[in-house]
Amino acid sequence: MRPLLISIGDELLNGKKSDTNLLFIGSELQSIGIPLAGHVTVGDDKERIKEEFSHAWRKFDLIIVTGGLGPTHDDLTVSCISDFFRSPLRLNRKVLNSIKRIFNHRGKEMPESNIKQAYLPEISEPLRNSIGTAPGLLIRKNGKIFCSLPGVPAEMRAMFRNCLKPLLTESLSWHEEKVIRSKTFCLAAVGESFVYEILQPVWEKHFKADGEKVRLSYLPSPFEIHLGVNVMASDKRTASRLLRKATEVIRKAVGEFIYSDDGSSLPEKVSQILKQRRLTLSVAESCTGGLVSSMLTDVPGSSEYFIDSVISYSNKAKERFLGVKHQSLVEYGAVSREVAIEMARGIRKMSDTDIGLSTTGIAGPKGATKTKPIGLVWIGYSDRESLDAVKFIFSKDRIKNKEMMSKAALNFLRKKIINPV
Amino acid sequence: MRPLLISIGDELLNGKKSDTNLLFIGSELQSIGIPLAGHVTVGDDKERIKEEFSHAWRKFDLIIVTGGLGPTHDDLTVSCISDFFRSPLRLNRKVLNSIKRIFNHRGKEMPESNIKQAYLPEISEPLRNSIGTAPGLLIRKNGKIFCSLPGVPAEMRAMFRNCLKPLLTESLSWHEEKVIRSKTFCLAAVGESFVYEILQPVWEKHFKADGEKVRLSYLPSPFEIHLGVNVMASDKRTASRLLRKATEVIRKAVGEFIYSDDGSSLPEKVSQILKQRRLTLSVAESCTGGLVSSMLTDVPGSSEYFIDSVISYSNKAKERFLGVKHQSLVEYGAVSREVAIEMARGIRKMSDTDIGLSTTGIAGPKGATKTKPIGLVWIGYSDRESLDAVKFIFSKDRIKNKEMMSKAALNFLRKKIINPV
Repeated sequence: MRPLLISIGDELLNGKKSDTNLLFIGSELQSIGIPLAGHVTVGDDKERIKEEFSHAWRKFDLIIVTGGLGPTHDDLTVSCISDFFRSPLRLNRKVLNSIKRIFNHRGKEMPESNIKQAYLPEISEPLRNSIGTAPGLLIRKNGKIFCSLPGVPAEMRAMFRNCLKPLLTESLSWHEEKVIRSKTFCLAAVGESFVYEILQPVWEKHFKADGEKVRLSYLPSPFEIHLGVNVMASDKRTASRLLRKATEVIRKAVGEFIYSDDGSSLPEKVSQILKQRRLTLSVAESCTGGLVSSMLTDVPGSSEYFIDSVISYSNKAKERFLGVKHQSLVEYGAVSREVAIEMARGIRKMSDTDIGLSTTGIAGPKGATKTKPIGLVWIGYSDRESLDAVKFIFSKDRIKNKEMMSKAALNFLRKKIINPV
Repeated sequence: MRPLLISIGDELLNGKKSDTNLLFIGSELQSIGIPLAGHVTVGDDKERIKEEFSHAWRKFDLIIVTGGLGPTHDDLTVSCISDFFRSPLRLNRKVLNSIKRIFNHRGKEMPESNIKQAYLPEISEPLRNSIGTAPGLLIRKNGKIFCSLPGVPAEMRAMFRNCLKPLLTESLSWHEEKVIRSKTFCLAAVGESFVYEILQPVWEKHFKADGEKVRLSYLPSPFEIHLGVNVMASDKRTASRLLRKATEVIRKAVGEFIYSDDGSSLPEKVSQILKQRRLTLSVAESCTGGLVSSMLTDVPGSSEYFIDSVISYSNKAKERFLGVKHQSLVEYGAVSREVAIEMARGIRKMSDTDIGLSTTGIAGPKGATKTKPIGLVWIGYSDRESLDAVKFIFSKDRIKNKEMMSKAALNFLRKKIINPV
C-alpha cells in the first residue's frame, strides 16, 4: 500500500505554521508498516486542490487529506471531494444531530454556518469527530482508500487513532502481513562521511541479500549523526532477528561513537548518567557563552545535579571568579589547555561539586591569532582525583561553533564519567 | 512567478523530523511577494524524486529543492538533477578546492566520499555554502529557475539569504516591472490577538482601497510578534509612499511594543544600544539557566559589553557568588522581587559593570507552590543609580518558559537603558 498525505491550508505554505500533522501521521504509518510514500501541501485554492486529488488518485492507493473541513469560506475540502468524485452533497441527519448536540452541551445554539459541515458527498461514509464539530470522510473505490481528516491536530489525532488506524491495520494484516521494527543510534564527535566509509561496506556485505527489508539512513546535524535502521518482515521473529543483526553490525563498526540508542539527546544522556552516579556538576564557560548551561537546564530536574555555572568572558573574571592564575593567562593565553584545566578546577572548588567542566575558545568572527584559528576550543575537566582537557577545531560560523563546542563539552564529560581514569 | 518547494528525505516522511526549511522558505518568499504555490515532500527514492521534478517543471516556474546533497548513498539530489536535465556530472575544481579547505581548516584530510560533492551537472552554476561542504546548484532554463539547496537548516538559510534571495528580488523587479518594498516590525511583550484587535480596524480603514497592493501579515513566536508589511507598486514613488503610510499607521496603533524595524532580533537590538551608550553588562540567571547569556553571546562582538554571568541554580550560590542575603531567601523565597534585585545588584558589583540583570523563577515542570505558579519569573535590574524589578507569568512548558523569560529579561533591559529613571 502506497500512502500519500495532502495537507491543505495557506498557513502551511507562508511560514506561519508548522505541519505537525505530517509528523504525527508519518510516524503512525511508519509504525504500522506502511511508510508515507509522499506528502503534498496545497493552499486554500479550489483548482489546485482538485489538481492534487487527481494526481494523487492516479499514483497512490491510500490518500489521506488533512484540513479545510471548518465552517468558513476558505474551507474547501468537502466541495472539492464532491466535484472530484462527481458525487453530490447530501444532508446527513445523523451528522447534523451530533453537531447540534455538541453546541447544546456547551449551552449554545448551533450557528448557521455549521450546517455546512453536515453535507457530505453521497459516495462517502462519515468518520466520527470525538472532539470537534467537523466529521471526517471515508471513500473506498477501486480497491483504494481516500480519507479526509480535520486540520486541528487534536481532532485529527483522535480520528486517526479511533477510525482510520484500526481500519488500516485490519486491511493490512489481511493482504500483506508485515511487521516493522526501527531503532535510532545517536553518534557524536564523528563526521557523516567517516561513518559512511567505515559502515557502508560491512552493511552491504551483511544486508545485500535482505535488500529493501533492512534500510539504513544517515541524518547529520552539528557534531552529531543519527543512524536510523528500519526493518520490515513478514513475522515478528524475523523482524527481531534482523534488527538484532543490524544492531550488532552498527555497534561493531562505529560503536565507540554511539551515545544513545533510545532517542535520548546528549544533554539528556549526560543527565541520566549524572543522576545514576549521584554526581554534581558545575560549569565555567567562555566561548560557549552560556549554551552548555542552557542545554543542561533544558532537561527537567537538572537542579538535582547541575549546581552553578560562571560565564567568564573576560580574563579578569577568569581570575576573580575561577581562580585562574594570572601567570597562566599571560604565558599560555586564555585559549589553552592550561587555562581550560584551571577553569574546570576553579569552578569545581568554588561550587564544591564532584565535577567541573570548562570551555575556552574562539567562536568568531574575530579573535583569531596566527596559532589559534577561529573554531578552536579547549575543553577542561576536573573531578576530585583527576584533571584532563581536549582540543577541537570547528567551523568559521559563530552560532554553529557555539553549538558544536557545547556538544563537544557534553560529550567529553559523558566519556569521562563513563570511563573515569 | 509560481514557486514550488520540494523537500527531500525519508526522515521528513516517517515522523522523525519536522520540516523547518518549509517554514523558513515559506515565510521568506511571502516577504518578497511570491508566496509558495505548493510544497512536496519525497523520500530518498530516485524514481520518485525524478517524477516530482518532472511534474514540478511542467507546472511551476521557480522550483526550490532542499536536501539530499550530502556525501552518502541516500543523497540522491544531484544525480537526479543530472538525469532529469540530461546534463552529465563534471568535476568542478573550484568547488573541490573549497571543500578541501574546509577540512584543512579543521586539521583533517578530506574523506574520499566528499569528492562526490564537487561533481555538478554541466548545466548548473554552483552556489557557495558559507557553513558546510555541500555546494548548492542553480539552473536557469526556458525562463524558469531550478535551485537545489542543502537540507541542513543553517546551511540552507545562509545560502538562501546570500545567493537565492538577491537573485529572486532582482529578477522580480526585472521582468514584472513591479517594485516591492517590505518591512518587518518586531514587537515584544504583546499577544497576537491584542495587536490584531487594535491594528486591524485602522488598517482596513486606511488600506481597503489599495487592496492587494499593501499586505499585512502577523507572525507570532514566543513573547514576540512580527508584523510584515508588503507593498507592491508599479513605480518607486508609489511604493515608498505606501510603505511610509503603512509605517505611520502601525507606529500609531502599536508603536509602544515595537523594538526594531530593521530585522534586528532582541539580543541584537540590546547589543546595539549597549555599544552606542558604551555600557557594560553582567547577568545573574537562575530559572533561565544560561539562555539569556547564550542569546547575548550569539551576537558577534558581544565581548565588548558583556562581561560575565553567573548561573546560580542553588540558594547557596546566590549567597556565595552574588551576595544575596540569607535573610531575604528565607523571608521572601528565591523567586521574589527582593531576591531578583539583590541578584542584579550582586552581579553588577562583583563584575564591576554598569548594569546587572537577573532572572529568578519557576520554569517547571516541578517547583510550583500555592502562591508561586509554574511560569512565574521575577526579572531584576541594577545600574549605578537605581534598582528595579518586574514580574511575568508565562506557560506550563519548561523550554517555552526559558525562552519567554529570557526574552522578557532582554526586553526589560532594553526599556530601562532607553528610558533610564
